[in-house]
Amino acid sequence: MLRTDVKIFAGTSNGELAKKIGEKYGLPLGDVEIVRFKDGEVYVRIDETVRGRDVFVVQPTGEPVNENLMELLIFIDALKRASARTINVMIPYYGYARQDRKSSPREPITSKLVANLLTTAGANRIVTMDLHADQIQGFFDIPVDHMQALPLLAKYFIQKGLHGDDVVVVSPDIGGVKRARKLAEWLDCKIAIIDKRRPKPNMSEVMNLIGEVEGKIAIFIDDMIDTAGTITNGAEAIMARGARECYACCTHGVFSDPAIERLEKSCLKEIVITDSLRQPERKKLDKITILSVDEIFAEAMRRIVNNQSVSELFEKKHK
Amino acid sequence: MLRTDVKIFAGTSNGELAKKIGEKYGLPLGDVEIVRFKDGEVYVRIDETVRGRDVFVVQPTGEPVNENLMELLIFIDALKRASARTINVMIPYYGYARQDRKSSPREPITSKLVANLLTTAGANRIVTMDLHADQIQGFFDIPVDHMQALPLLAKYFIQKGLHGDDVVVVSPDIGGVKRARKLAEWLDCKIAIIDKRRPKPNMSEVMNLIGEVEGKIAIFIDDMIDTAGTITNGAEAIMARGARECYACCTHGVFSDPAIERLEKSCLKEIVITDSLRQPERKKLDKITILSVDEIFAEAMRRIVNNQSVSELFEKKHK
Amino acid sequence: MLRTDVKIFAGTSNGELAKKIGEKYGLPLGDVEIVRFKDGEVYVRIDETVRGRDVFVVQPTGEPVNENLMELLIFIDALKRASARTINVMIPYYGYARQDRKSSPREPITSKLVANLLTTAGANRIVTMDLHADQIQGFFDIPVDHMQALPLLAKYFIQKGLHGDDVVVVSPDIGGVKRARKLAEWLDCKIAIIDKRRPKPNMSEVMNLIGEVEGKIAIFIDDMIDTAGTITNGAEAIMARGARECYACCTHGVFSDPAIERLEKSCLKEIVITDSLRQPERKKLDKITILSVDEIFAEAMRRIVNNQSVSELFEKKHK
Amino acid sequence: MLRTDVKIFAGTSNGELAKKIGEKYGLPLGDVEIVRFKDGEVYVRIDETVRGRDVFVVQPTGEPVNENLMELLIFIDALKRASARTINVMIPYYGYARQDRKSSPREPITSKLVANLLTTAGANRIVTMDLHADQIQGFFDIPVDHMQALPLLAKYFIQKGLHGDDVVVVSPDIGGVKRARKLAEWLDCKIAIIDKRRPKPNMSEVMNLIGEVEGKIAIFIDDMIDTAGTITNGAEAIMARGARECYACCTHGVFSDPAIERLEKSCLKEIVITDSLRQPERKKLDKITILSVDEIFAEAMRRIVNNQSVSELFEKKHK
Amino acid sequence: MLRTDVKIFAGTSNGELAKKIGEKYGLPLGDVEIVRFKDGEVYVRIDETVRGRDVFVVQPTGEPVNENLMELLIFIDALKRASARTINVMIPYYGYARQDRKSSPREPITSKLVANLLTTAGANRIVTMDLHADQIQGFFDIPVDHMQALPLLAKYFIQKGLHGDDVVVVSPDIGGVKRARKLAEWLDCKIAIIDKRRPKPNMSEVMNLIGEVEGKIAIFIDDMIDTAGTITNGAEAIMARGARECYACCTHGVFSDPAIERLEKSCLKEIVITDSLRQPERKKLDKITILSVDEIFAEAMRRIVNNQSVSELFEKKHK
Amino acid sequence: MLRTDVKIFAGTSNGELAKKIGEKYGLPLGDVEIVRFKDGEVYVRIDETVRGRDVFVVQPTGEPVNENLMELLIFIDALKRASARTINVMIPYYGYARQDRKSSPREPITSKLVANLLTTAGANRIVTMDLHADQIQGFFDIPVDHMQALPLLAKYFIQKGLHGDDVVVVSPDIGGVKRARKLAEWLDCKIAIIDKRRPKPNMSEVMNLIGEVEGKIAIFIDDMIDTAGTITNGAEAIMARGARECYACCTHGVFSDPAIERLEKSCLKEIVITDSLRQPERKKLDKITILSVDEIFAEAMRRIVNNQSVSELFEKKHK
Repeated sequence: MLRTDVKIFAGTSNGELAKKIGEKYGLPLGDVEIVRFKDGEVYVRIDETVRGRDVFVVQPTGEPVNENLMELLIFIDALKRASARTINVMIPYYGYARQDRKSSPREPITSKLVANLLTTAGANRIVTMDLHADQIQGFFDIPVDHMQALPLLAKYFIQKGLHGDDVVVVSPDIGGVKRARKLAEWLDCKIAIIDKRRPKPNMSEVMNLIGEVEGKIAIFIDDMIDTAGTITNGAEAIMARGARECYACCTHGVFSDPAIERLEKSCLKEIVITDSLRQPERKKLDKITILSVDEIFAEAMRRIVNNQSVSELFEKKHK
Repeated sequence: MLRTDVKIFAGTSNGELAKKIGEKYGLPLGDVEIVRFKDGEVYVRIDETVRGRDVFVVQPTGEPVNENLMELLIFIDALKRASARTINVMIPYYGYARQDRKSSPREPITSKLVANLLTTAGANRIVTMDLHADQIQGFFDIPVDHMQALPLLAKYFIQKGLHGDDVVVVSPDIGGVKRARKLAEWLDCKIAIIDKRRPKPNMSEVMNLIGEVEGKIAIFIDDMIDTAGTITNGAEAIMARGARECYACCTHGVFSDPAIERLEKSCLKEIVITDSLRQPERKKLDKITILSVDEIFAEAMRRIVNNQSVSELFEKKHK
Repeated sequence: MLRTDVKIFAGTSNGELAKKIGEKYGLPLGDVEIVRFKDGEVYVRIDETVRGRDVFVVQPTGEPVNENLMELLIFIDALKRASARTINVMIPYYGYARQDRKSSPREPITSKLVANLLTTAGANRIVTMDLHADQIQGFFDIPVDHMQALPLLAKYFIQKGLHGDDVVVVSPDIGGVKRARKLAEWLDCKIAIIDKRRPKPNMSEVMNLIGEVEGKIAIFIDDMIDTAGTITNGAEAIMARGARECYACCTHGVFSDPAIERLEKSCLKEIVITDSLRQPERKKLDKITILSVDEIFAEAMRRIVNNQSVSELFEKKHK
Repeated sequence: MLRTDVKIFAGTSNGELAKKIGEKYGLPLGDVEIVRFKDGEVYVRIDETVRGRDVFVVQPTGEPVNENLMELLIFIDALKRASARTINVMIPYYGYARQDRKSSPREPITSKLVANLLTTAGANRIVTMDLHADQIQGFFDIPVDHMQALPLLAKYFIQKGLHGDDVVVVSPDIGGVKRARKLAEWLDCKIAIIDKRRPKPNMSEVMNLIGEVEGKIAIFIDDMIDTAGTITNGAEAIMARGARECYACCTHGVFSDPAIERLEKSCLKEIVITDSLRQPERKKLDKITILSVDEIFAEAMRRIVNNQSVSELFEKKHK
Repeated sequence: MLRTDVKIFAGTSNGELAKKIGEKYGLPLGDVEIVRFKDGEVYVRIDETVRGRDVFVVQPTGEPVNENLMELLIFIDALKRASARTINVMIPYYGYARQDRKSSPREPITSKLVANLLTTAGANRIVTMDLHADQIQGFFDIPVDHMQALPLLAKYFIQKGLHGDDVVVVSPDIGGVKRARKLAEWLDCKIAIIDKRRPKPNMSEVMNLIGEVEGKIAIFIDDMIDTAGTITNGAEAIMARGARECYACCTHGVFSDPAIERLEKSCLKEIVITDSLRQPERKKLDKITILSVDEIFAEAMRRIVNNQSVSELFEKKHK
Repeated sequence: MLRTDVKIFAGTSNGELAKKIGEKYGLPLGDVEIVRFKDGEVYVRIDETVRGRDVFVVQPTGEPVNENLMELLIFIDALKRASARTINVMIPYYGYARQDRKSSPREPITSKLVANLLTTAGANRIVTMDLHADQIQGFFDIPVDHMQALPLLAKYFIQKGLHGDDVVVVSPDIGGVKRARKLAEWLDCKIAIIDKRRPKPNMSEVMNLIGEVEGKIAIFIDDMIDTAGTITNGAEAIMARGARECYACCTHGVFSDPAIERLEKSCLKEIVITDSLRQPERKKLDKITILSVDEIFAEAMRRIVNNQSVSELFEKKHK
């Protein structure tokens, strides 16, 4: 069933995930030597033939984003020159996704630049997950397979018994309502929205809560948690309005300082994330649960290799 | 001051606006012959030299969008082959802007396709206005100058005396909050948001109003009004909650059927739009006010030609 | 024999032909939803996986040419983003083919522009028929498979018994002599040419007939009949010179107004065309015979899929 | 008037013409060293700065076409790397023009290939003359300025008194009628056409003469004379039909063997060509008159530099 | 004389040099905000208009190379989208230059990759200095202006009185002979070469000295000093052969660990480098002399802006 | 084992080698008609289907380099338009390799230009041998498989008994030391280097010999022998220093005049080259031995077709 001409490689940014994807798929990681010279230059040498192979490289571009991105581009260049048949780049977390438009004059659109760089280097396909904005798919003219972690997160809460009318899904801001609605659909519950806004320019910001949370178990959802300010403040507010308990979940645990400190201190009972980004030991709190997206990427890989629909993977099967 | 090597041309989709932009800039429209042959093919012949000139072409790609877009591409091809120095395409309304991402499998991203087509044909710069999503700028690798109609709309309401605490700006949905906030800043008033959502999948949609409207003059704002369903329903809801009067404004009056009928019947007192799209006679209601963006585009053109900042045009001068 | 990884889809411009090509090839048309929104924008969603497939799309770009062309480009974009392995575009009638050079200053070369647009959108191969000028193949840098309808037309006349010395093939103008000569070769007969020209600039146009038509059955041939002026006038002239009967044939029945009226009134006994373009009911005269090119395109598809020579298809087998 | 930032250079294929164009324009040829190494490799070194200059290079790609073409491509590469502002390539004779379409399977379209090579090397504009097929302009996506030698040839015959009713312009084949018609317009005379064709496949070729030549001075016109078979045979035929005298003219004197021998022996009284190609001494017969296109190219250059219409150059001024 | 439409900006990798180049040229550095977010992403916002300007950005891509390179690419993207007329990238030290070919299978050619990335981002010209291999110029299809530090280094030694027969220039390996020869030409002295090689595979490496050093002042020259092993070992060897004193010079002081320690301990009396790379305080030894290349780059900039020859800058004027 | 969808074709520059590669691989040469018209234009028509095939074309670009290169580009164009699946270009000798960088101002980098031309024409892979500079691989963005003739040459000398301590490998200049070292490794012997240099600018050139040659059999090695001046002078010098016998070997026998004369007269006992270039009869001296690289290219082709490592081919197996 599996074609023998498929290989999977890992960059250095999340080797653990890459290894697990390979295991779920049924392939060991390919041999590659990645060196950082004393002057900081990255060197990649692939140590087994990739000629005519369909190659997958796993490299989320989280911190240190520039190191990881350049390493990935160099990796792709090596694969291209080594006659790989197709180069399928798995970027579970797509760095620079938030720089996706000009919000003030003379800004770059780095998210598009990165798309151009990957294409120039020689990528033939991007497999990514929960892009900050859907429009980023359009920054590419090569196929983009867009994974979703939401079903994984949803099933976790369902298994914990957190679904139904006792639960409310909360969007930490107005931009995330669609995501909250999807999770609520899985959990068969209502949603609430935190709307932080300045009613008039010269007035101070007001935190507005749309929807009911009193007596409920609130589950925050976002695509990523960066410094964790929004979500921890949101949790306080929700508790103040009478919520029983607070959970949070997101796909990408970016966790820039002081995220870990804030989360630890916060009233959040549990924070559920995925392993799209590798977490260093110091960022592993007891109350942070990490779900693996290995099976999602392995299955996507399987479907890509076997020419099966990838989108079917994310169709909700109604109970 | 004006360089003599600038020319401005009009496609057929909004010749009136093009003429007005030219007048404000101080240039008559260039001679061009645009013919539709009996078999529907478009033919463009430019009837004066454009060699070495910085050429501006005005062509919003509203209905019939495919006709207007192909005509524009053909126009650009003719300019390129005729040795224009730069081809600056003014697209006050950018058609297909809403198809800017894949929302279900195997969809196109037509908005990106259009960007690629314009670039392939030979465009060197896009001057457009109030794109449906800011990310569309990133679909281009050529410079995009992004105009805003909001100051124009704001000033209109200020001149009418509609500003201050009697007024509330209303966003017809959650996606438009940022726009509403900007208008409110101009009008020095509060905002309200209509949040139409299904609290749980098996429940019916609820129209939620965030913010106060009672006794106020409500001004709806959106980037475009297409079939006018959202905005007319929103207006009913607002009036039901005690608003004193309802106005609406938007940049692009798309007005697909039955927009005009709906607007006419609605409780909206006045609908303020711009002339980014040309309105046929049958779409000109008494209560529709059309503000011209001619000066905005003429000034942008002047600044582009004279290498001055275009973004400064939209910096709000505090009173 | 047939590879299972081939799919065929139809755009909206000639679904009947697409269906027939599919049937001859042995494949049903793939599921696709093509919608025209109220504002005129086209939306294409492919409703079955095309991942890794060799996809054929059938879409002649006749009237309304701009609608059909944009729809095709959007279709290609959707296929590309959905990971089709190759996108083979079947354009039995290639619109804008006559705008293939600059005949006066500052004209576009729309035929080349269209080639660039198709390539930019993502087409990997063009399968077309009887291009107005052979050079259009050179407008592409992707492979072009160029079908010929002439053998089909020739066999039709042979079956009717119209061949040999009683028959004369007539070229309606000097540009079409090569085509006439080829048909004459099939029909084993002589040719004649109508040479309409102005011997001196200030003299009126003279219709010159080269070759003998007296007492013969004349068969006009052209690549397309547009407004039918040339061919109906030619037929009158031929009859005036003593031809016994007049037939006409062409590949593409463009039939812009007033073609149908002219053909109906004309002395032409029968006009034989192909179904490269779909004819609306009002254009179906009794004396117009439509031959299907379904088998030609199905066979081309078969040979493309099986890596067999396509050109062999058009080698004349001598009786 | 002349901008000082213009430079003109000559390749080795027609240095005389280049020098004359420079003189008419008012510029000496730029310093360049072009060497052919012992192993046949061409080396080009430009010996004066071209930084930021608008550079013109004159190089018709006649025999030896591959040498001349590669030299031109290398020249362009050197200019590009030396920071020329624009590279305007003057190719009075465009080699490989006749390979402009596939006339049998698996042929190249070399004419398009050459266009791609010139563009890849870095050309920004092509200035050429009397292309074998107008569609070749469409092989480029950079501007092509298309010169015509016909007015020059026409004026020569007018000065000789060869115009009016005593004269007839003859097209040596059906493909050249348009050209003949244009010359006749200048000479205020009628045209005739030689139509060499095989009325039926198994019959021998017949030379058909359309139009009157008896007692007239016949002037043949073609775009190029290669082996001179067609034109010398045509001249015999014309004389046999009673023409008084025979002249021939063309833009490009390709003169492959045995052209010179044939022309010398022929009944042609004078053959008028241009210096688009350099003629070696052995090809300079007394009865061959060479008109220089220097002023045409110098004037085109002037207009390109000064952003004036080039097409106006070829508008016929009525007497 | 100076055109007012020129601007110069600095990335963060060597702001001091950028500032000095600007001062020598006569321009202050342009306003730009470069931020590194907490998650490591770089953000660049240009704070003054660059519309229609010829912009120079100074950013050597030394350690941390990936940070500096990505910052540069993002900077270029911002400039391109802000309508800069040309983007001239000054990279005094070109990182990854040593990865310029495949020396074992399945290696990248990162030096070429970087060239492609810069071009894709939008660079129009590269101004760099003493590239590790001259062929890297060919990795670009945009103009590359290649500066030389050698005259600067030479003049320094001449001013110190180190020239003539007392001096010998030493190449630390066989690859650097050409460079040594050039310096010797400036210093009017002889050269020597260290040839470290294994005469036979199973023999140990032998340090061979070609040329005379006894009693002389030896000056080592290389393009860069990285870990300083080669040059400090070479100096020991030279002293052992009777050299009087040892100096070293190079363009790029890369100084990866343990370079500084080695240099400090070594018998080298002085090491002369340039400021192509910024040296942190801890790398500034008393015996390291840093010459500024500011005037070289400022003069190059002046000549680029004024369309004067840049190569003339490096022609040796004979005394 | 061999896939049936592979075809091999020969250009005209070295048909013998192509035929032998085909034989070793097990495939006859494909049918192709290559014509040079009287005006010097090349015409290529492929006479069998290549649709969907992996095609190999063998064409070293030696003298006449421009003819051979243009023929190759035209061949590639024909293959591309004929729907070849991949076009693998075998260029055993890559012409223009020595023009790989700018060594004085305003030079081209023809070696890169050629890479661009091959890619533009449609090549998908280059298979070449012993490129003059390794960096040329980086001029391509398509895969380059780089063959080595050195093992072949080495084995020839081993078979002749020329190895071990009696032998010394000589590099004719400092640039070739690496190559000499590799051969010495095969022959298990020492190396010597000829270092021709001017110790000071105003002194005359000195031929310096590094290493021992007295009483030894010297074997010169270079990548190519062009006019043979360096190598014949080197041989004289070596003999003068007491070498017993002199041999020379290289990959590419370019042999421009007066190479053959020089080699004949020289003290060289035997010159061993490969058939990367075809030698005309007049260049075949008795003392020139030509080894065929047919098996190397056939094996490379086999490995490319079967997706096996090509680099393994050149790993030295230790005895």
